[in-house]
Amino acid sequence: MREISIETGVTRHAEGSCLIRCGGTHVLCTATLEERVPPFLKNTGLGWVTAEYGMLPRATHTRMRREAASGKQSGRTQEIQRLIGRALRAGVDRSALGERQITIDCDVIQADGGTRCASITGGWVALRLAVNKLIKAGDIVSDPITDHIAAVSCGIYAGQAVLDLDYLEDSEAGTDSNFVMTGSGALVEVQASAEGSAFSRGQFDEMYGLAESGIAALVKAQKAATS
Amino acid sequence: MREISIETGVTRHAEGSCLIRCGGTHVLCTATLEERVPPFLKNTGLGWVTAEYGMLPRATHTRMRREAASGKQSGRTQEIQRLIGRALRAGVDRSALGERQITIDCDVIQADGGTRCASITGGWVALRLAVNKLIKAGDIVSDPITDHIAAVSCGIYAGQAVLDLDYLEDSEAGTDSNFVMTGSGALVEVQASAEGSAFSRGQFDEMYGLAESGIAALVKAQKAATS
Amino acid sequence: MREISIETGVTRHAEGSCLIRCGGTHVLCTATLEERVPPFLKNTGLGWVTAEYGMLPRATHTRMRREAASGKQSGRTQEIQRLIGRALRAGVDRSALGERQITIDCDVIQADGGTRCASITGGWVALRLAVNKLIKAGDIVSDPITDHIAAVSCGIYAGQAVLDLDYLEDSEAGTDSNFVMTGSGALVEVQASAEGSAFSRGQFDEMYGLAESGIAALVKAQKAATS
Amino acid sequence: MREISIETGVTRHAEGSCLIRCGGTHVLCTATLEERVPPFLKNTGLGWVTAEYGMLPRATHTRMRREAASGKQSGRTQEIQRLIGRALRAGVDRSALGERQITIDCDVIQADGGTRCASITGGWVALRLAVNKLIKAGDIVSDPITDHIAAVSCGIYAGQAVLDLDYLEDSEAGTDSNFVMTGSGALVEVQASAEGSAFSRGQFDEMYGLAESGIAALVKAQKAATS
Amino acid sequence: MREISIETGVTRHAEGSCLIRCGGTHVLCTATLEERVPPFLKNTGLGWVTAEYGMLPRATHTRMRREAASGKQSGRTQEIQRLIGRALRAGVDRSALGERQITIDCDVIQADGGTRCASITGGWVALRLAVNKLIKAGDIVSDPITDHIAAVSCGIYAGQAVLDLDYLEDSEAGTDSNFVMTGSGALVEVQASAEGSAFSRGQFDEMYGLAESGIAALVKAQKAATS
Amino acid sequence: MREISIETGVTRHAEGSCLIRCGGTHVLCTATLEERVPPFLKNTGLGWVTAEYGMLPRATHTRMRREAASGKQSGRTQEIQRLIGRALRAGVDRSALGERQITIDCDVIQADGGTRCASITGGWVALRLAVNKLIKAGDIVSDPITDHIAAVSCGIYAGQAVLDLDYLEDSEAGTDSNFVMTGSGALVEVQASAEGSAFSRGQFDEMYGLAESGIAALVKAQKAATS
Repeated sequence: MREISIETGVTRHAEGSCLIRCGGTHVLCTATLEERVPPFLKNTGLGWVTAEYGMLPRATHTRMRREAASGKQSGRTQEIQRLIGRALRAGVDRSALGERQITIDCDVIQADGGTRCASITGGWVALRLAVNKLIKAGDIVSDPITDHIAAVSCGIYAGQAVLDLDYLEDSEAGTDSNFVMTGSGALVEVQASAEGSAFSRGQFDEMYGLAESGIAALVKAQKAATS
Repeated sequence: MREISIETGVTRHAEGSCLIRCGGTHVLCTATLEERVPPFLKNTGLGWVTAEYGMLPRATHTRMRREAASGKQSGRTQEIQRLIGRALRAGVDRSALGERQITIDCDVIQADGGTRCASITGGWVALRLAVNKLIKAGDIVSDPITDHIAAVSCGIYAGQAVLDLDYLEDSEAGTDSNFVMTGSGALVEVQASAEGSAFSRGQFDEMYGLAESGIAALVKAQKAATS
Repeated sequence: MREISIETGVTRHAEGSCLIRCGGTHVLCTATLEERVPPFLKNTGLGWVTAEYGMLPRATHTRMRREAASGKQSGRTQEIQRLIGRALRAGVDRSALGERQITIDCDVIQADGGTRCASITGGWVALRLAVNKLIKAGDIVSDPITDHIAAVSCGIYAGQAVLDLDYLEDSEAGTDSNFVMTGSGALVEVQASAEGSAFSRGQFDEMYGLAESGIAALVKAQKAATS
Repeated sequence: MREISIETGVTRHAEGSCLIRCGGTHVLCTATLEERVPPFLKNTGLGWVTAEYGMLPRATHTRMRREAASGKQSGRTQEIQRLIGRALRAGVDRSALGERQITIDCDVIQADGGTRCASITGGWVALRLAVNKLIKAGDIVSDPITDHIAAVSCGIYAGQAVLDLDYLEDSEAGTDSNFVMTGSGALVEVQASAEGSAFSRGQFDEMYGLAESGIAALVKAQKAATS
Repeated sequence: MREISIETGVTRHAEGSCLIRCGGTHVLCTATLEERVPPFLKNTGLGWVTAEYGMLPRATHTRMRREAASGKQSGRTQEIQRLIGRALRAGVDRSALGERQITIDCDVIQADGGTRCASITGGWVALRLAVNKLIKAGDIVSDPITDHIAAVSCGIYAGQAVLDLDYLEDSEAGTDSNFVMTGSGALVEVQASAEGSAFSRGQFDEMYGLAESGIAALVKAQKAATS
Repeated sequence: MREISIETGVTRHAEGSCLIRCGGTHVLCTATLEERVPPFLKNTGLGWVTAEYGMLPRATHTRMRREAASGKQSGRTQEIQRLIGRALRAGVDRSALGERQITIDCDVIQADGGTRCASITGGWVALRLAVNKLIKAGDIVSDPITDHIAAVSCGIYAGQAVLDLDYLEDSEAGTDSNFVMTGSGALVEVQASAEGSAFSRGQFDEMYGLAESGIAALVKAQKAATS
């Protein structure tokens, strides 16, 4: 598992923010609080948590085209930001949040594998800090955050299950997986995909075991950053 | 498990085609063979299998806006078609295919839950038929298809693991998962997502067991359709 | 004239639907009823009938790029769907329909010439069935459909006027025309276009005569399908 | 029939240009000659004539949104520019033109009905002038222009066939038609459309007769402008 | 300085219009008056003046792609239309205008350098005429136009400051500048840009001096056109 | 003048990078070197320097919509990135650079006024570092960078010329200007714009004087960061 660092309060304007570093992967996460919800939630009493994901053009080895310039977000970007939003909502009681929207922006400053997992783990910290502000201000009574949400990647690399792949390992892994879990170890999302050849139930279970230990370390880092 | 039917040869022009019906979900799958590959594969000797997914506007209970009219494919559409392509490639030896591209189009005529799984299962049949043509014509020597690929959805519905959810069950399921497997039972892709509350390892394992039996039935139907 | 078949009730969700086959051209037509009208008709007491047209990517000899993927509908698609909507509205008393919108989706499953004509003829059947439902439910009192609407193509092929061109004939025809008429033989839309050389008044009249007989056969098939 | 005026040589850069005025409808037509053809014509020895159509935002009674700002050309614009190109090609021997492309831009400065017809009639003049330049320069030997092409609108207004409708008449006409003919009176394109109620064969014939006389007047004006 | 001509009342529908010719640069400017303001000005009592800029495809030596066809306005177009709007607003008391919007459309018919400056100078005339109409109709009491606004370009060409560059001079100038001033000689906007090598304070001052004389001539032409 | 800090080497992959902080405005600048040039420079022996500009959605007080999500770069973004590229090219001998392209990405992490000026000043540092690498590697012989390029904003705030406006000052300034200069004090670009009322020659000169002192301080900081 690569070294984790979570620095909070890194931008002046956001209601919550952190810069999470998982090895060479650095993601800036900000939470924006708005006193409005999307149309489909009006007058339901429920809040909304959503996420957007981006990469600076030179976060990667070779420069990638800026999505704003190409005029659309790639399928990969959309897939990732849908995942982040879904994952974070699994740890929120939207009725306790009330009719408010919190948008988590995850912008990758430097990429070295596992950017979607770092975005979820760091995004939760930004969310936690924004909600803390709401509670401190007396705007909400009971804490809508029900548990930690963190994510880690695993893979089958050179025939063996490995945790928290960097870019090189990820490129060569035969299977690539992401586990999103709560602080109490329940599953929120599992994605495992054979990049080359299919994988066995045993290999899946090995990855699962590694993920559990990784998530525990990430949740500890989240606690340190937000306490 | 809902009734499965796979009717082949349903359109005149495609190199392979079928109409797959899983209960009320009907998907038209066609395979298009082209003697060219995407730029990144030129002069590598490797072929490519890719997929596109669409829904007729009135495949659903209420009419959905036509994506061609709105000017872009939704994040959901892109996520699904990336999944279909990735899944089918896991059952293909791209070197044996040679520098050819096969595009699988999956168009949902009528939707009642599980459209991405039906697309994978039916898409494999269209792919199989197109490759058969190549073999019969003597254009390739060794069969590039290494195994069956099929997919089925599971969920936690009313506290219990269920197989092959229809639309109503899917809407109310607390957890939603898709399993893609080979004919020999190896895993190709696992996606499990908590729609409401997180799920346990035990629940995941239950879904896994159901999926294995479902896949077996689907592979049997694929064999009947292509033999 | 190629063989016509109209199968109704082919999809579960639409208020009206049919699969029309004119020789090798197969079009799925669905009618969607909505209790709202476009902004420019609000509070006018008038209803609206509109149409959208699409082709499955492999409806044709070689695969065409999916319009949802290319990000816009071609000029040809827009021209055709504007024609279908205009043609069907010519057979509807929009005041008797009341402030409702009916959207006719015409999706070409397999193409062999004359897809826009088949869409109009089949679209009318879907419209008729949806309106029948409204009448049966007592939602409207007097029938807003004033007459049948059907369409057929003609051309000058090898110097001679021919009816209902298939793809090959159409590609080689020197003049291409579409006639839309009512059940009582009045003209709704005429489009005739010199593909190669200009045509004479006499040739136009010959096509007109053929079209009249073709329309009569199509209206008969519509009657059989909806009675 | 409204007064026609065709002023040539109105812009400095175009290979051919004119400002055509049909009553209150003013269209600036320019011809651009390029020594290249679209990909599908390379090495065929054939040339190409194509057209684009636009309206200045305040050519109309109320300002229309600029298509460049809305990010796409409307279906109407595309339909019209396809018609103009098709019509002009009917009067060109593309083999005599050789592998060159001539683009006719028709920009409506002021609109009062019949803009597509004025574009065709004026577009032909711009085309004629550009081809004259080619001939004078000795770049082509035999004249590729085989005949005049002109267009006029007709309608059924207040129960009676009328020629060359202005905006007010057009808005209230029950049937709207456009006739494109050659200088020798052959038909190039006929479009007739019931705006309200269907029309009879007799009414169509009346419009046809009026169109013939209108085209004769337009061709005379073209001759005056280009001789 | 090239010859200036400003012809007013050139289109029938606009509330104000002119065709301004600065040498070979011809721009059609129209003013559209609407009794509404953009959302951010609702209930502020303030009006708005905005501008759009376009070039006919063959206004230039070689044909430029139509922006409506390419699906977006270029950065250059957006920069110019933002400048025109900002410049004209500097001469308007938006409170005296009241909650109305005036849109100035500047469409370049023929380009020979200085199109943005001609657009500002001609745009002011169209604005003046539209406001005159409002005053005559008694819709506003006190004149919202506080001063003339005109613009002229300068450059360092062959080492020397020159006024009102045409296209050839502009292409070869080492520095290119635009000065927007009021009728009383105050500065509204200054843009000076080194195209090749940096320029000195002295060179800037020389251009400034030339611009003052050019603006005086333009304001005189505006007065002649609107009195 | 606000405090300036320039931290170099902040991202692992870029050929040159810095994080520039001008008070509360923080911009990450990276330089990407590619051994290719845009088509219009092929075989000319000349290199190219270009720039792209972006803002993280929550760099500002209230969240701005992500340009990648809205599908296009705003006019403001395009205007700024064109300015940055033009400014940096004024300090580069493109013939000495050879047929290479350097892309400067300027991404605003936190905004508090003057982001385009900080982007130019920081962008030059990233460019300097990337070119240093080329020289060290022996890929180019003579230094293509001819001088420092730096930029600072000025304004007329409360009737008085002020240097380096922050967001609040900028919002309330009557005139807003940006000066881009070389290290030797020559002018590269001047943009001054009346936001409310026009400004006098004397006020412009006052801003100019302030800018000269500001640029000197920025160039000193550039030297410290790159020596």
